[in-house]
Amino acid sequence: MDRLSSGAGPLPIVGKPQLPIGQFESRPGIIDLGWGHPGPELLPTAGLGQAAVRVLERYGPDALNYGYAGGPGPLIAWVCERLCEVDAVAPTPDCVVASAGNSQALDHLATLLTAPGDVVLVEAPTYHLAVRILQDHPVDLVPVHADRFGLRVDVLAQTVRRLREQHRQVRFLYTIPTFHNPTGASLAKERRRELVKFAETEEVLIIEDDAYRELSYDGAAPPSLWSLASPGAVIRLGSFAKSLAPGLRTGFITADAAIAGRIRDSGLLDSGGGISHFSSLMVAEFAATGEYARNVEKLRRAYTERRDVLLTALSQELDGRATWLHPSGGYFVWVTLPPGRDASALLPQAEANGSSYLPGSTFYLEAGEGLRSLRLAFSRYRPEELVEAVRRLGRILGGPTARLGPAAV
Amino acid sequence: MDRLSSGAGPLPIVGKPQLPIGQFESRPGIIDLGWGHPGPELLPTAGLGQAAVRVLERYGPDALNYGYAGGPGPLIAWVCERLCEVDAVAPTPDCVVASAGNSQALDHLATLLTAPGDVVLVEAPTYHLAVRILQDHPVDLVPVHADRFGLRVDVLAQTVRRLREQHRQVRFLYTIPTFHNPTGASLAKERRRELVKFAETEEVLIIEDDAYRELSYDGAAPPSLWSLASPGAVIRLGSFAKSLAPGLRTGFITADAAIAGRIRDSGLLDSGGGISHFSSLMVAEFAATGEYARNVEKLRRAYTERRDVLLTALSQELDGRATWLHPSGGYFVWVTLPPGRDASALLPQAEANGSSYLPGSTFYLEAGEGLRSLRLAFSRYRPEELVEAVRRLGRILGGPTARLGPAAV
Repeated sequence: MDRLSSGAGPLPIVGKPQLPIGQFESRPGIIDLGWGHPGPELLPTAGLGQAAVRVLERYGPDALNYGYAGGPGPLIAWVCERLCEVDAVAPTPDCVVASAGNSQALDHLATLLTAPGDVVLVEAPTYHLAVRILQDHPVDLVPVHADRFGLRVDVLAQTVRRLREQHRQVRFLYTIPTFHNPTGASLAKERRRELVKFAETEEVLIIEDDAYRELSYDGAAPPSLWSLASPGAVIRLGSFAKSLAPGLRTGFITADAAIAGRIRDSGLLDSGGGISHFSSLMVAEFAATGEYARNVEKLRRAYTERRDVLLTALSQELDGRATWLHPSGGYFVWVTLPPGRDASALLPQAEANGSSYLPGSTFYLEAGEGLRSLRLAFSRYRPEELVEAVRRLGRILGGPTARLGPAAV
Repeated sequence: MDRLSSGAGPLPIVGKPQLPIGQFESRPGIIDLGWGHPGPELLPTAGLGQAAVRVLERYGPDALNYGYAGGPGPLIAWVCERLCEVDAVAPTPDCVVASAGNSQALDHLATLLTAPGDVVLVEAPTYHLAVRILQDHPVDLVPVHADRFGLRVDVLAQTVRRLREQHRQVRFLYTIPTFHNPTGASLAKERRRELVKFAETEEVLIIEDDAYRELSYDGAAPPSLWSLASPGAVIRLGSFAKSLAPGLRTGFITADAAIAGRIRDSGLLDSGGGISHFSSLMVAEFAATGEYARNVEKLRRAYTERRDVLLTALSQELDGRATWLHPSGGYFVWVTLPPGRDASALLPQAEANGSSYLPGSTFYLEAGEGLRSLRLAFSRYRPEELVEAVRRLGRILGGPTARLGPAAV
């Protein structure tokens, strides 16, 4: 990429040093497995630079003007093709809308689909930042417990029944059925069918966060809830943050044609000319050359190795002192300490010993839950750093205990 | 930019032809002055391609990973410098947050700052798509009339008093004081001070849409309301859609440190790692080489010519048959037909004659208002096309009328 920049002379200094570029905060001496970020060396920097240039060659000013509200056609067409390969059912283009990532999509759907005072159901545990997005809206969040096979559909049914007896309007369930954040668990096949059936019968809309679908390490990812449901029952949020690059702020929504139309026709998308026009075209361009598929293969290999290295290190260092779930995809391993231990209380000691994590309580709405658990992200660090981080964790945990139960979700 | 793409062979075909890329819909034979879009030939395609490549050279994977919630440091630092040149006061970096354009910023502020049932005040007339964004939130919109000197502050005061007597919570006023959409008018200097004083005294928050500041054609743009107000009274929405390229979906918010902190700390920005990370860095990179400033100069020259050509054509073709305001910046000329004429009713005839516009009623909340008015955008078309469009409009209007009053806002 030298030639393009050489004409403009040496790169000038921009910005004040005190202003950060990225979200990640490096802390010297700490291997911080709290960050659910991709490994920087796994981001296709050169390829995306070329994609940006090629987008402008191909579309000229159309790549920089106001975009089509539903997202640029080439992206939508390719999403349909890609889902044909990585999911059980492919959508038609009228059911797909470009998003600026799953955060934006969830925020926007909360705006469009909820009324003040509505109940939104979330899993316990669930992605803590999705909770923060929903809490910025005038809805009440109600947790539904999950176990290591994913959401408890029986508990969901009880919860919905109870809420309806209280004359509450249950607007939707936000769920991460595939390679869950934080647990790494995937909803068991039978439960997927039960959940979809419940949603259809009881008319509880599901918003399925499908951010990790592409990152499957033990064969194909399970079919999405969206692919199993009849039209209108499930809205799926798909993202390129994990399969490509979070900084592009791109993703997509699959829904039924009516909901897709409502999103496309929203003030936000109509007035802005789409939501992430140029970077969506970059994704489409990167995909058109086959680079997206090759990049996902590379990510799967790298993250499979990191997961395996982390799991092996846990076995070697923490056997008898903690338990954990085996994730078949995604970024995370969910670790449970013996009864009586508190992952939040241990954190300062862990950091003093040079490793960090997110305490399990982060992922629960209700105080006192998830105390014994913690989330380790294997995505950002190299294998040798993962081993070292677990070794450091091992130092602060006491000896083996007979009281160790299975991993608690 | 050949070298980068030549390695990958001929450009493959992507996308289905039926799926659009852009928002603009070309209609053969019609010069459509309804579109408030930049002229495609005025978008700095080559320069932004180089900026994308240079961003990746400079920051590597940090440009593609999760960004800092408030927006990348180099963008924030440069926004402060730029506002020092094009506004009366420059913010400090803690008072600036990156946005994904003014649509996203307005949507997000409506989420963060309003409670269900709140009143949001808007000008009459106002930007119709801002209204659609606000209508997606559970607030009630109340119009406040403007005239050719901008918002009537006396009417605002009466309206707020009346609403408070009804025990309504007035949450904020959305206003476009500089190079208004649709009227092109700028709020008179005295009224700016009155408005700010009213906002401070009565504690009515102002959200100032400042999208057109850079496009000033008769000297410097007036000082922003934000620059005139004490901290906390005004939130200003700045955009790169008009001064650079809408498809990048980038802009910024200036507020006081507390509100800026609230936005930065929202679930949406925290979880997504900022809102428009890569394209914000592209803007900062484009600015660092001085290209942004040169581009704005180019735009001012081009749009000044287009405005002047349109105004001259209006004088030549419609003198005595319509009146209009003289805009000192922005994209639009607001035209008023004689009493009894209806711009909506005339539209089919105008289009049959090969020109189009947006009827004035589009920009009012209340039925029956703005009937005699229409908005012409001089931004998208070349001078000769503007002349031809006005000539075609002239054909469908009757002869000169004695009943012609001043331009009605």
